[in-house]
Amino acid sequence: DRVRFDIFREKRTGFPEAVFAPGKSDEDIVNIVKAVGDVLVTRLPPDRAEGILKELGDIDRRIEYHETAGVLAARSGDPQFIGRIGLLSAGTSDIPVAEEARVVAEESGCEVINAYDVGVAGLHRLLDPLRRMHESGVKALIVVAGMEGALPSVVAGLVDVPVIGVPTSVGYGVGEGGSVALKSMLQSCSPGIGVVNIDNGFGAAVLAVKILRACSL
Amino acid sequence: DRVRFDIFREKRTGFPEAVFAPGKSDEDIVNIVKAVGDVLVTRLPPDRAEGILKELGDIDRRIEYHETAGVLAARSGDPQFIGRIGLLSAGTSDIPVAEEARVVAEESGCEVINAYDVGVAGLHRLLDPLRRMHESGVKALIVVAGMEGALPSVVAGLVDVPVIGVPTSVGYGVGEGGSVALKSMLQSCSPGIGVVNIDNGFGAAVLAVKILRACSL
Amino acid sequence: DRVRFDIFREKRTGFPEAVFAPGKSDEDIVNIVKAVGDVLVTRLPPDRAEGILKELGDIDRRIEYHETAGVLAARSGDPQFIGRIGLLSAGTSDIPVAEEARVVAEESGCEVINAYDVGVAGLHRLLDPLRRMHESGVKALIVVAGMEGALPSVVAGLVDVPVIGVPTSVGYGVGEGGSVALKSMLQSCSPGIGVVNIDNGFGAAVLAVKILRACSL
Amino acid sequence: DRVRFDIFREKRTGFPEAVFAPGKSDEDIVNIVKAVGDVLVTRLPPDRAEGILKELGDIDRRIEYHETAGVLAARSGDPQFIGRIGLLSAGTSDIPVAEEARVVAEESGCEVINAYDVGVAGLHRLLDPLRRMHESGVKALIVVAGMEGALPSVVAGLVDVPVIGVPTSVGYGVGEGGSVALKSMLQSCSPGIGVVNIDNGFGAAVLAVKILRACSL
Amino acid sequence: DRVRFDIFREKRTGFPEAVFAPGKSDEDIVNIVKAVGDVLVTRLPPDRAEGILKELGDIDRRIEYHETAGVLAARSGDPQFIGRIGLLSAGTSDIPVAEEARVVAEESGCEVINAYDVGVAGLHRLLDPLRRMHESGVKALIVVAGMEGALPSVVAGLVDVPVIGVPTSVGYGVGEGGSVALKSMLQSCSPGIGVVNIDNGFGAAVLAVKILRACSL
Amino acid sequence: DRVRFDIFREKRTGFPEAVFAPGKSDEDIVNIVKAVGDVLVTRLPPDRAEGILKELGDIDRRIEYHETAGVLAARSGDPQFIGRIGLLSAGTSDIPVAEEARVVAEESGCEVINAYDVGVAGLHRLLDPLRRMHESGVKALIVVAGMEGALPSVVAGLVDVPVIGVPTSVGYGVGEGGSVALKSMLQSCSPGIGVVNIDNGFGAAVLAVKILRACSL
Amino acid sequence: DRVRFDIFREKRTGFPEAVFAPGKSDEDIVNIVKAVGDVLVTRLPPDRAEGILKELGDIDRRIEYHETAGVLAARSGDPQFIGRIGLLSAGTSDIPVAEEARVVAEESGCEVINAYDVGVAGLHRLLDPLRRMHESGVKALIVVAGMEGALPSVVAGLVDVPVIGVPTSVGYGVGEGGSVALKSMLQSCSPGIGVVNIDNGFGAAVLAVKILRACSL
Amino acid sequence: DRVRFDIFREKRTGFPEAVFAPGKSDEDIVNIVKAVGDVLVTRLPPDRAEGILKELGDIDRRIEYHETAGVLAARSGDPQFIGRIGLLSAGTSDIPVAEEARVVAEESGCEVINAYDVGVAGLHRLLDPLRRMHESGVKALIVVAGMEGALPSVVAGLVDVPVIGVPTSVGYGVGEGGSVALKSMLQSCSPGIGVVNIDNGFGAAVLAVKILRACSL
Ligand SMILES: Nc1ncnc2c1ncn2[C@@H]1O[C@H](COP(=O)(O)O)[C@@H](O)[C@H]1O
Ligand SMILES: Nc1ncnc2c1ncn2[C@@H]1O[C@H](COP(=O)(O)O)[C@@H](O)[C@H]1O
Ligand SMILES: Nc1ncnc2c1ncn2[C@@H]1O[C@H](COP(=O)(O)O)[C@@H](O)[C@H]1O
Ligand SMILES: Nc1ncnc2c1ncn2[C@@H]1O[C@H](COP(=O)(O)O)[C@@H](O)[C@H]1O
Ligand SMILES: [Mg+2]
Ligand SMILES: [Mg+2]
Ligand SMILES: [Mg+2]
Ligand SMILES: [Mg+2]
Ligand SMILES: [Mg+2]
Ligand SMILES: [Mg+2]
Ligand SMILES: [Mg+2]
Ligand SMILES: [Mg+2]
Repeated sequence: DRVRFDIFREKRTGFPEAVFAPGKSDEDIVNIVKAVGDVLVTRLPPDRAEGILKELGDIDRRIEYHETAGVLAARSGDPQFIGRIGLLSAGTSDIPVAEEARVVAEESGCEVINAYDVGVAGLHRLLDPLRRMHESGVKALIVVAGMEGALPSVVAGLVDVPVIGVPTSVGYGVGEGGSVALKSMLQSCSPGIGVVNIDNGFGAAVLAVKILRACSL
Repeated sequence: DRVRFDIFREKRTGFPEAVFAPGKSDEDIVNIVKAVGDVLVTRLPPDRAEGILKELGDIDRRIEYHETAGVLAARSGDPQFIGRIGLLSAGTSDIPVAEEARVVAEESGCEVINAYDVGVAGLHRLLDPLRRMHESGVKALIVVAGMEGALPSVVAGLVDVPVIGVPTSVGYGVGEGGSVALKSMLQSCSPGIGVVNIDNGFGAAVLAVKILRACSL
Repeated sequence: DRVRFDIFREKRTGFPEAVFAPGKSDEDIVNIVKAVGDVLVTRLPPDRAEGILKELGDIDRRIEYHETAGVLAARSGDPQFIGRIGLLSAGTSDIPVAEEARVVAEESGCEVINAYDVGVAGLHRLLDPLRRMHESGVKALIVVAGMEGALPSVVAGLVDVPVIGVPTSVGYGVGEGGSVALKSMLQSCSPGIGVVNIDNGFGAAVLAVKILRACSL
Repeated sequence: DRVRFDIFREKRTGFPEAVFAPGKSDEDIVNIVKAVGDVLVTRLPPDRAEGILKELGDIDRRIEYHETAGVLAARSGDPQFIGRIGLLSAGTSDIPVAEEARVVAEESGCEVINAYDVGVAGLHRLLDPLRRMHESGVKALIVVAGMEGALPSVVAGLVDVPVIGVPTSVGYGVGEGGSVALKSMLQSCSPGIGVVNIDNGFGAAVLAVKILRACSL
Repeated sequence: DRVRFDIFREKRTGFPEAVFAPGKSDEDIVNIVKAVGDVLVTRLPPDRAEGILKELGDIDRRIEYHETAGVLAARSGDPQFIGRIGLLSAGTSDIPVAEEARVVAEESGCEVINAYDVGVAGLHRLLDPLRRMHESGVKALIVVAGMEGALPSVVAGLVDVPVIGVPTSVGYGVGEGGSVALKSMLQSCSPGIGVVNIDNGFGAAVLAVKILRACSL
Repeated sequence: DRVRFDIFREKRTGFPEAVFAPGKSDEDIVNIVKAVGDVLVTRLPPDRAEGILKELGDIDRRIEYHETAGVLAARSGDPQFIGRIGLLSAGTSDIPVAEEARVVAEESGCEVINAYDVGVAGLHRLLDPLRRMHESGVKALIVVAGMEGALPSVVAGLVDVPVIGVPTSVGYGVGEGGSVALKSMLQSCSPGIGVVNIDNGFGAAVLAVKILRACSL
Repeated sequence: DRVRFDIFREKRTGFPEAVFAPGKSDEDIVNIVKAVGDVLVTRLPPDRAEGILKELGDIDRRIEYHETAGVLAARSGDPQFIGRIGLLSAGTSDIPVAEEARVVAEESGCEVINAYDVGVAGLHRLLDPLRRMHESGVKALIVVAGMEGALPSVVAGLVDVPVIGVPTSVGYGVGEGGSVALKSMLQSCSPGIGVVNIDNGFGAAVLAVKILRACSL
Repeated sequence: DRVRFDIFREKRTGFPEAVFAPGKSDEDIVNIVKAVGDVLVTRLPPDRAEGILKELGDIDRRIEYHETAGVLAARSGDPQFIGRIGLLSAGTSDIPVAEEARVVAEESGCEVINAYDVGVAGLHRLLDPLRRMHESGVKALIVVAGMEGALPSVVAGLVDVPVIGVPTSVGYGVGEGGSVALKSMLQSCSPGIGVVNIDNGFGAAVLAVKILRACSL
């Protein structure tokens, strides 16, 4: 009984319970998944997932593990469609963070239109995906970028919908750990980007979901 | 002709032209206001505003200067209603930043329901305003806080709609300049807060407006 | 004889000898415990504890190892009751630091009333424990929090007794290493929080003990 | 009506209303003092105090301005004696911060025994004052130090009562702004120092007062 | 005789003597200009320039003061043409830094093709100037940007010639002082940008000149 | 198909495709090398290289692995000579970074004249190599240095050609991670050094190559 | 009586009383000078010195004010010769800090041989002065440098005697405030440099004096 | 032949060749020791030392490995006595750094009088060792301290001879990595401490040796 659950949170903040795996034992995770109805376990590397999936073998819910995203979902039903969002990543190394956002958003009822490795060093790769997203009627864009984190600035200069910037820890030298990408997004010359913590694909998805839900209030 | 205007921005990014006054001369400001149709001048202190208003005396548009906000608006018409948002400030010293957000949001067609000085040191002050905002059907909340910047965390734990966190430079010692408030919001235990730069009431309003507009797509 | 002991410290500063395990060999620890009368060894992980306990097998004192806290106590008698304190943690990941504080305080004669995982993202969890602590007559509250470290601010806004803030290194991105939690507590809008170093449950307990002892001067 | 008062705070957190002058106009201050019963205005420089005192000329309460401390007190009665504390400053430049602590503590009912300019570069100056404080039965020591902030470490190695460390912004080069003093106190080799923000004499006094009050619970 | 001149530097490092005005008195400047043959005085604000120009009234050399650049040039002849470079600025506030680069480069024999206020928030403004520079045969591009400093990344993704990135101190909040722009350029996903210090238009020009001279070795 | 290639980059930015190995699996690398014509894989440690070389055993291109540099080159032909550059390293620990620059530059057609371990603690070692480089007609100098990073300053005070400064992460204590070397180069008293990110030998080579190519425009 | 004097310090630590003027009123300074026998007042700008000198007009001691150094000396006799030191500054802007060191050293009995503006951007200026100092038998060298602070490294690679590094706050951009120069000296590839705080010419002189005195023990 | 030796250094800077082991292979070390006459290898952990000693088994010089210090000395003769120094460490964890200083100083001809674990939390431990050192006629004191690094301040307030401060990386939370100890020493209220880099026992010994040698000039 070391862990209390925020069981009213879905109703209260518009989101299913999410459990951050680091700092919890495999046993903790198994217990939580068994105890809670709908739950997402994030930051779960493949080696840990394997054992946990075995332990959960006979549980009576849909269990899915998304490897690149590092997310395990245990759901009693399928999420209800709430709308569409776009999802961009600047580099290939940013994909795991983008995938965390994708899985969390999809498990919350979003349809996600994504385009990866479309960073600012080659702008010609960016325009087609943006057009496609625009035509699909996305109501928010999640833009994931490490290094100098310039992609959200460029995107927010081209589109109308809210842009959520997710800095990643991809980089080296002065960019190590993601602080350059983070600060670039906060200090963007394109106003109105909502920024989340470094590598926080989860938080970006939550914000996008809240936007979609608010739209249907 | 030192300045080029982003004239297509309102159509392209959902927002009228906004001019950042610091680093521009009064003469620059006057020329810009005369040249552009609908424009907001931000970070304009009262002493500068006085002279500029005189120069603009005979211009054929609605001119309004909001002192606490430091915003001058020159508009040819009134903005069209696009929806409601809530606006909270933790302390009284955060009010100028909150007011910047309010004026910019209102000039973009938002109705703003605000409550100031409702920070976490006295939580009893917070619940009534939140309830009132909820009942008005706000689709986003802007939460402005300096010092330790904890208010967005608390608010996002209580509401469903997207929360936009605006850290302010209010604080001293380790909190000087606003970096503690900023990082608290990014590192919140309440997921899904979209954070903007320190003192960036303007950017928060732009994001809120984009959310409201996306909802009516 | 590489180590000198501060043998008068208990009398002089109100506390038994405490030994910080990192940077000392297991052999060093065993020798110290054998040489000193009443001693606490802190930051001792289970794998190291196992071997050391074996070596100390026949020592003529009460030996207890607290796993979550990482504290080994070797005491010739039981501590004398000196008063009650409250102990709160914001998240489940902060529990090891809180437990270090609990064990150290209890070994110094405090009765500790604790409540874990009661952070600001769900304020409804906080009020009951606080009331219970208040009714037990606690003379100080230790509040342990990582991430944005907002819990001490909220607690200090609700209670009369001294609050000791313990930031933890729980967090990621901008919060990594605990500096955001630390600075939030120092820069709190609730005045009068005494802050200790990141993850320093030990120091928080020492301060609480000094307060209780001062009260009985 | 730009300012709401935390009128229940004295009862709730053991302290009269305190107003931080920076960021408020003289007029704001005058209005607050008139509206609130017992109030302390802090960080009020002499030039501002002069005008404010004039405006308050005929108010029916004891009004006192402490110049070095920068504190104005408006009280309807005298504080009730709650106990004794010691107050040390390392250098002469730290005196304004120490004085802020002294005035706030005295206005809350503490008797304060102080010794200034007794820093670690000349330890012979320190022992007599400490002995004197000890004999007076102080229940807490506030130790104010800038530069390398070593005094609280030395003092906490010599006494039994709780030590509250107040780093000051006195210093230059790497010590500019007080961060070296702050971190020295947090990272002290003498455990159990409760640290407050840089230059926060006010917060140190509040913590000392809370300790004294807890002792009489 | 407080100042020694690096008289062989033009021959040795390919550049005329340059004097950094801050920290020198007007009298110092006048003496230096009189003593040295070809000299550029940089970071000289208009109010200082006025007095100095008067003092130099009858000197027998071409004297020119460039106000926006803050550069005073005292030359005995005209520089010899050494080639063409391009010069871009992201915003209007970056223009003074860009102008410092322009004047220094022109006084060293460069022909400079410039385009200002062509930042990444509106990419449509960028392509025409780049094409024009390309067609003029520029051998290096100086790209000046503050805020998130993304322009050099975008430009270096589009062109073949060496790009010199000049971060400026334009920005606020996390971007204050220019460190975000600086680090963005160093951590660019477009490889091969040569970065100079914040606001160092002078250094960028020197590097461009060295490149042009090397080409004619 | 997780990776898109910037196939036009060689034509567009004057450089063959380069792949950064960290964060990519060995399988990813093998696939990329097979798919792309001319490619350099950087930051590839010997243990990874071994396996990858085996997998590529029968590929129909020149494959070379440079161990100290950590660079694997897969080229269909030999690069065409484009000019000469000089390459200096301050210490022996800086050699891997220098070698990355050397291999990348040579694979792009540069002839590289190098001298390693010629740092400022023994200036007598520096002059001969510099003279030799000068006589060979180098058009740019790459200067690699860790610790206090002073070598580019000294070199740029002695030569005419453009100097590219590469700070390395060699150092400890305050110099750990390379930030001291980086900032020394940016803040050099010798103007006109183009600085790249910490340990970025690759970027330095790219810049040198762009300079040589621009010279032949 | 706000100030206690460390009257035994000259005997105890080998140095006359020194008073740091910032943070003390002119009246404080006058009182101290009158009360103490031999005293140096440092960081005293010319405008403050003027008034203070007037107040001290009839004091019965040698009074000297050194303007560039900002040091006022009030001495009852002349210092006794204790030996020779060398003093170098890298730039002209570093001279005030160097002069503070010079005056303090001379007032303590050192003969000082100095050479200013001999920084690493032009090494040819350095060798003659060093030779001259060597021949005079200096027992320590004080080397003052701002910007990238490389001069102590170069000097310590050329001489046998102890080198004392004094970083200055001269610089801009990343070097602003002197932290780059400071860290360069601490992280020097020439071992054995004793570093003092930024702009601390005073401390450097004290260390040099202690060395000379130790030599005559 | 990857390594060049600074063979004239002993004559030129008063010190035998010293080799920093990290970043060099065991083979590199063996070759260097064989090639150079008198050499010290520093930062060599026991596991590496074992293999290297085997390889050097038949070399015709005195070979000694100091385990706690991590220093291997290969000397053809014994150093010549040059004088006495004192050596203090604040804690037991600082001993490895102190030992590095001791071995290097002794191998250079110093007689070293040491006292370890005499930090400021228990000042009673400090006075006897200091007296003993004083009576032995030491000409310099090396003071090693981690955590808050206050010991050099206290010592320099009590003695006449030059104090060399060596901050260590011992600490945690805000003190992690040693930067608090470093800055405390630089910002000491006791003037004239010569500070070296974090954990740089080697550099401190070099400085002490230079002082002793200068004394015998
Ligand atoms: N991948 C993630 N990134 C950031 N925050 C997360 C992530 N997954 C879960 N969380 C947050 O962390 C909280 C759970 O923390 P815990 O109770 O320690 O499992 C959840 O309520 C989420 O708000
Ligand atoms: N867990 C802990 N956290 C912080 N400080 C500690 C801890 N345990 C022991 N200490 C302090 O570290 C000192 C012991 O250091 P040492 O002599 O190296 O064992 C003790 O006197 C305590 O003040
Ligand atoms: N605007 C500038 N920005 C950066 N460095 C400059 C500037 N102007 C001059 N310098 C450099 O500063 C040196 C002059 O410093 P000083 O001898 O103090 O005048 C010159 O040799 C230039 O290298
Ligand atoms: N060693 C290196 N250092 C810095 N940047 C590199 C290095 N190697 C490759 N790059 C850059 O990183 C990009 C490749 O990133 P990716 O697409 O993730 O392989 C290339 O286009 C290069 O610009
Ligand atoms: Mg890519
Ligand atoms: Mg308030
Ligand atoms: Mg929880
Ligand atoms: Mg004093
Ligand atoms: Mg613009
Ligand atoms: Mg070497
Ligand atoms: Mg100069
Ligand atoms: Mg100890």
